[in-house]
Amino acid sequence: MQTELIRQDGTRFPALWLRDNCQCGTCQIPGSGQKLFDITDLARDVLIAQADEDADGVQVVFTPDGHRSRFTHTWLETYRPGTAPPYDDRTEDAKALWTAADLEDVVPTGTWPSFADDPTERARCLEALLTQGFVILHGVPVADRAVLGVARSFGYVRETNYGELFEVRVEQKPANLAFSSRPILPHTDNPYRDPLPTIQLLHCLTNAAAGGDSGLVDGFHAAATLRREQPDAFDLLTRTPVTFRYADAGADLSTSAPLIGLDALGRIRQIRFNNRSMRPIALEPDRIAAFYQAYRAFAELLYHPGAQLSFRLEPGDCVIFDNTRILHARSGFTADGARHLQGCYADLDAAASELAVLRRALDVVAQLEQLFNDQGNSEYLGEPVTQAAHMLQTAAHAEAAGAPDALVAAALLHDIGHFTGHISGGRLMTGTDNRHSHTGADWLAAWFPPDVTEPIRLHVAAKRYLCAVEPDYLQRLSPASLYTLNVQGGPMSAAEADQFAALPHARQATALRRWDEAAKDPKAAVPSFAHYRPLLTRLLHT
Amino acid sequence: MQTELIRQDGTRFPALWLRDNCQCGTCQIPGSGQKLFDITDLARDVLIAQADEDADGVQVVFTPDGHRSRFTHTWLETYRPGTAPPYDDRTEDAKALWTAADLEDVVPTGTWPSFADDPTERARCLEALLTQGFVILHGVPVADRAVLGVARSFGYVRETNYGELFEVRVEQKPANLAFSSRPILPHTDNPYRDPLPTIQLLHCLTNAAAGGDSGLVDGFHAAATLRREQPDAFDLLTRTPVTFRYADAGADLSTSAPLIGLDALGRIRQIRFNNRSMRPIALEPDRIAAFYQAYRAFAELLYHPGAQLSFRLEPGDCVIFDNTRILHARSGFTADGARHLQGCYADLDAAASELAVLRRALDVVAQLEQLFNDQGNSEYLGEPVTQAAHMLQTAAHAEAAGAPDALVAAALLHDIGHFTGHISGGRLMTGTDNRHSHTGADWLAAWFPPDVTEPIRLHVAAKRYLCAVEPDYLQRLSPASLYTLNVQGGPMSAAEADQFAALPHARQATALRRWDEAAKDPKAAVPSFAHYRPLLTRLLHT
Repeated sequence: MQTELIRQDGTRFPALWLRDNCQCGTCQIPGSGQKLFDITDLARDVLIAQADEDADGVQVVFTPDGHRSRFTHTWLETYRPGTAPPYDDRTEDAKALWTAADLEDVVPTGTWPSFADDPTERARCLEALLTQGFVILHGVPVADRAVLGVARSFGYVRETNYGELFEVRVEQKPANLAFSSRPILPHTDNPYRDPLPTIQLLHCLTNAAAGGDSGLVDGFHAAATLRREQPDAFDLLTRTPVTFRYADAGADLSTSAPLIGLDALGRIRQIRFNNRSMRPIALEPDRIAAFYQAYRAFAELLYHPGAQLSFRLEPGDCVIFDNTRILHARSGFTADGARHLQGCYADLDAAASELAVLRRALDVVAQLEQLFNDQGNSEYLGEPVTQAAHMLQTAAHAEAAGAPDALVAAALLHDIGHFTGHISGGRLMTGTDNRHSHTGADWLAAWFPPDVTEPIRLHVAAKRYLCAVEPDYLQRLSPASLYTLNVQGGPMSAAEADQFAALPHARQATALRRWDEAAKDPKAAVPSFAHYRPLLTRLLHT
Repeated sequence: MQTELIRQDGTRFPALWLRDNCQCGTCQIPGSGQKLFDITDLARDVLIAQADEDADGVQVVFTPDGHRSRFTHTWLETYRPGTAPPYDDRTEDAKALWTAADLEDVVPTGTWPSFADDPTERARCLEALLTQGFVILHGVPVADRAVLGVARSFGYVRETNYGELFEVRVEQKPANLAFSSRPILPHTDNPYRDPLPTIQLLHCLTNAAAGGDSGLVDGFHAAATLRREQPDAFDLLTRTPVTFRYADAGADLSTSAPLIGLDALGRIRQIRFNNRSMRPIALEPDRIAAFYQAYRAFAELLYHPGAQLSFRLEPGDCVIFDNTRILHARSGFTADGARHLQGCYADLDAAASELAVLRRALDVVAQLEQLFNDQGNSEYLGEPVTQAAHMLQTAAHAEAAGAPDALVAAALLHDIGHFTGHISGGRLMTGTDNRHSHTGADWLAAWFPPDVTEPIRLHVAAKRYLCAVEPDYLQRLSPASLYTLNVQGGPMSAAEADQFAALPHARQATALRRWDEAAKDPKAAVPSFAHYRPLLTRLLHT
């Protein structure tokens, strides 16, 4: 009986911790990892009765419940207790803090068309949003409500009392300073709201005014500077709740929170800074001078000219920023010059989720590309082209025929089973059916929808079908294909052909098959794998 | 020169604090109170050069800027520094903590029709949501997506990766335990999301299963008990960030936060409790046993049978609860019995705002009712009815005629200027026009839209107009009304009548006027003021 597992490298895993994290199908839902038992279902005195380490991992038997669990070495290394404080992508630890000088020539920007269509670009821009705290997209259509489309491309619009969308332009009697032509010092939005909208988008439709330039300031950088230079002031601002309030005819919003919010481990996590909606501070009279001194010191850091990145939003530009960290500002402008922005709010959690999902998808695509570059460059089973060239040609035919994205992807990946199955393509040529259509489809099904995998699964059967229903089809087969036809079972019987034709993806598989036969030209010039990256990533990301 | 204002009762107001809170039109936008200057615009050494107290308040002159500010006694008493920690409606201080026994016979419930139509009832239910942490509405239509209408009636739907709305019913391969028929222990939803959706709604469409009862547990109560009984365990849970994660094909959400979240003053403010999505705890091995002990202790308090309020949702019931505080649970049920709920998320800030706005409106309506009961019961300027009876009769005529709500309200309040103006109605009868139509309209304009105030403003002119364009209208006037007609300027000239008829609310004012003349029957039986409360409150709340 042991109270903990100690691995050969000395890493320690307490018994109860291990038992609580068992990943077997009785303890967790496979895939999502949702736990199926509760802490109160476990004994207080869980111990390890036996632990056996092998090349893949460790098998543990627990007492008193006798439960058996397996933990892979990779999993144990990933989650090993005590390696680091829990990662929190919202604290200063996960951010690249900056002042204007740090961003010279490296202001994070992108274009809307690439953000919308190219997952690699979208991932890069979202990473900038989460790391630098903002990104500027050029080329967003200068159209009413287009900003909502930008927000929805990576998350959900947070509706507020200002509506789904708010207009930033001069109003006659502004209740909010934003709707005037006055300069506005750096601030965060909606500090009176909890939950705070954590992302703001501002999309420029018109900017013909003299002035009206935009500014961004990294509140985390200013807070970290304050902590270094005036620790007492920093400490005071993290411990003093300030009440923010906004009231008009239809709303009366109020929240109390410190100007600098820390996480449970003392890391900077959230800035609220907006003098306009700050209510009278509620401290004892003798503590007020110190608060104002700290508040002023923080303000001076935030308003320091070197802190602010200044730029001009032109029509079609959309700046997306982290409203828990980045303060925004604008210079005053002539009230008669037209200036019109539309803004909306969204949230960081959805943006981070989108980035994580994109990264998973991009990893899969990178893995596929690697297969094309490695195994794909080997000989293609007696054909005059490599396997990679053959699949690229098949995809090019599909694309030229105007096939839907899923079928283009199926064409591109249809022989991937030769690379991934336990039985290699080479063995197929010596008379063993490697069932590469099935192994490929099964392997891809972890990431791709049936519209991609099922035509692949059926593409060998489609050859047998076509040879059955089109008597001259046999003559279009290459010698190698003719050879494998027999290994794979020969032409279908009439009954088999009827059955096949009734299958959901039979038509797509038959189309794929025809492109397959026509894709063995050693001189054809076709796009490279890179051309299909966006298409594949979009399909993965469902 | 003084560093602070010290009032006669000894209360102290530091000079800089006062200067920062000046409410003059140069320093703040009137109405919304948005501040127009910044802390860095103020000198470091603000002092009070002069302070003069009178019956209404204090006038202060500051140095070095020479600015003059006025503070009313009421304002100084409301915001006096040091009275109390800032009010925060989300911490335990603002809540009524409970166990099941505390709620016996006082479970907060309401009905959807009254919630939707009666502002007093809506305020009562929202107050329960914010104080007890939940409310159950009966009588919500058993219709697809009706839950979204409930959420939108007091706030904004928070869209998530589950969509605007989620279906709680048995799925074949549930990635989330909610979509199975298994029992689910008390938990909060979406702990892996930040910002967390702070309100959850669950609307029952079908519940024919055996089992499947609902349970609610007050997490704040359990946390407060843990603090009292095991302070070290409580402390540990407030300081240890736990990572929660949810991942499926389209989402990968992760957040780290303590199970018990405190505000900056150490008050309980947010519970995250969901064993299903908790990831392996990242503490050093030697600290893990203590964490599990504390976690188990908290779980045992939350799962204690006495903690849980159990009830059965019937079709048409909708439970609305605070997802930062209230854990929800359900018992298992037979998988073949139909059980179907629809749920969605919303946020507490909008609910609190709606309640604040409703309270303002209800205060105004209460103030109007008071006027009817006090001044309204006095004689009505030589007519055989009281002023209140006259206005109630006018409103009853408007309602009988099918007038829109705003015009019914205008009819009800048309003579309110007699109560509120500087010149009383009595003076009108001695030959001085008290311009009661204008004083009434101006007074009401602080709360009511023009559709209510403008017919009131024009109702005296409408009499002069009708007498001009309808020769026999004069004969319909009561002797008192005939007398005041002359004080008010007599019938209009033809040119004046043309001008009047072209005014935006002339038609409504003329209609009101006819009801006005017909509302002097000492024997008429009409609804009381209470009948108009919902209508008035709806109009106020725009």
